[in-house]
Amino acid sequence: MLRQQWQTNQSLVCVGLDPEPERFPVELAADPYPIFSFNKLIIDATATLVCAYKPQMAHYSAKSAELELEMTIDYIHQSYPQIPVILDAKRGDVGSTAQYYAQEAFERYKADAVTVNPYLGFDSLEPFFAYSDKGIIVLCRTSNPGSMDIQTLMLENTTPLYLHIAQLAATQWNKNNNVLLVVGATHPDALQKVRSVVGNMPLLVPGIGAQGGDVMATVSAAQTQEGNGLIISASRSILYHDPKLSLMDYSKEVSKAAAELREQVNQTRFNFPHSLHQP
Amino acid sequence: MLRQQWQTNQSLVCVGLDPEPERFPVELAADPYPIFSFNKLIIDATATLVCAYKPQMAHYSAKSAELELEMTIDYIHQSYPQIPVILDAKRGDVGSTAQYYAQEAFERYKADAVTVNPYLGFDSLEPFFAYSDKGIIVLCRTSNPGSMDIQTLMLENTTPLYLHIAQLAATQWNKNNNVLLVVGATHPDALQKVRSVVGNMPLLVPGIGAQGGDVMATVSAAQTQEGNGLIISASRSILYHDPKLSLMDYSKEVSKAAAELREQVNQTRFNFPHSLHQP
Repeated sequence: MLRQQWQTNQSLVCVGLDPEPERFPVELAADPYPIFSFNKLIIDATATLVCAYKPQMAHYSAKSAELELEMTIDYIHQSYPQIPVILDAKRGDVGSTAQYYAQEAFERYKADAVTVNPYLGFDSLEPFFAYSDKGIIVLCRTSNPGSMDIQTLMLENTTPLYLHIAQLAATQWNKNNNVLLVVGATHPDALQKVRSVVGNMPLLVPGIGAQGGDVMATVSAAQTQEGNGLIISASRSILYHDPKLSLMDYSKEVSKAAAELREQVNQTRFNFPHSLHQP
Repeated sequence: MLRQQWQTNQSLVCVGLDPEPERFPVELAADPYPIFSFNKLIIDATATLVCAYKPQMAHYSAKSAELELEMTIDYIHQSYPQIPVILDAKRGDVGSTAQYYAQEAFERYKADAVTVNPYLGFDSLEPFFAYSDKGIIVLCRTSNPGSMDIQTLMLENTTPLYLHIAQLAATQWNKNNNVLLVVGATHPDALQKVRSVVGNMPLLVPGIGAQGGDVMATVSAAQTQEGNGLIISASRSILYHDPKLSLMDYSKEVSKAAAELREQVNQTRFNFPHSLHQP
């Protein structure tokens, strides 16, 4: 799905569906399902511009909005069945419990992919990996400053922890060829190192925009020889605009922001020497 | 709350509320809220025998049973306000999102403590630590076999990763004196090492019973000089009995299982040479 979508929309951009109701257009104030309606607006405005959508679970859980999350994912599957949905849940638990989290992601919410935390090791991820038609996106080097506390610790063999995880993910953990990794745009050096050990594995890259990651550095460091291999995720920079705009004008701003990011990414990748997609 | 409860019930036992409806007493089959009713039965049967309750989130999320989780925690707070509730959610995300997960745990569900994953580093945990009257229980060495994949990796300075995390948790991360750690009963050596670096910090110890952890080895390795410092969690061995029993007989089996575990733990701790609680 992802490869198809990279091609169809000529886009490596993923829109993060991270609803913050206090920043919604004022016109949605009286909507009975404001989160769903906001997401629908974003989805309709960007469906020709993205390779994936990524709802971030905590934004829904904190607000008892599980139903609106289900409605959102259903809407994408119904209206844009070709676009994969990544549930950003960062789950991780011992094997018997991980099974329930896998059910939550794939059976309850019907996501196409889910983010997971590797700290508990292989048997905590195996129930996810077993869904061989789903994408399992393992945290490797996250975009936040605190990623230096644990992820970059140097192991005895002088490999940093995150790179050891990339190696495991690319080999022992990838029996069903359904593993991906998270590497933040704020660390181009890490993107390059991870790319060098994982071949063509797709990388989910948060941290562009609000968090300060640079598009050119990201794409240059981590695209594959085919000029793709990346899911570049942005949320706030695409989602939020002047709340006083009419829904139609708001929607235009959303499209414009997504199109600009897609263009910025494409500029870099099509100019990159290894690319097979020279314009 | 925890210290008080160790004292009042003379118990280090925590009951995990991990509902598996297919194993419920048959009498609950027609109940409109079977998960809540099952939990209520367990809680009423064990409230004089435990130091805490620990609902495991995934069991509720997979079944769209958020409401029954809320009802369960409300019931404990209403009926047994002295007993702390640990929400076992193993959350972890970048700072801005971690804030929403902290809201989920403490404002939506009104838990007294939550389990969190340290892989994303300090800024991912800070929004939890900021709730200074809540307990933040950081994964250190988990009870599953896969805990050997990442947690025991040896760092450059020859400290295993989990022990490095214990050191961080006991020092830099513990500014509000509200940090605890998870260390599985399946690793008595790790329990002893962690205890040696964290002073009197309480440890949440899963893995007794079904997972094969040994009570005597756990308590000897990790109790404090006061003969406590442990939250020994058991779920399946206390929760599940012959489903054909009447609710009253089922409830007796639950009490018996919890009382036996409490007794087993107390036997060991009161015989331990360092204990101040010699009978």
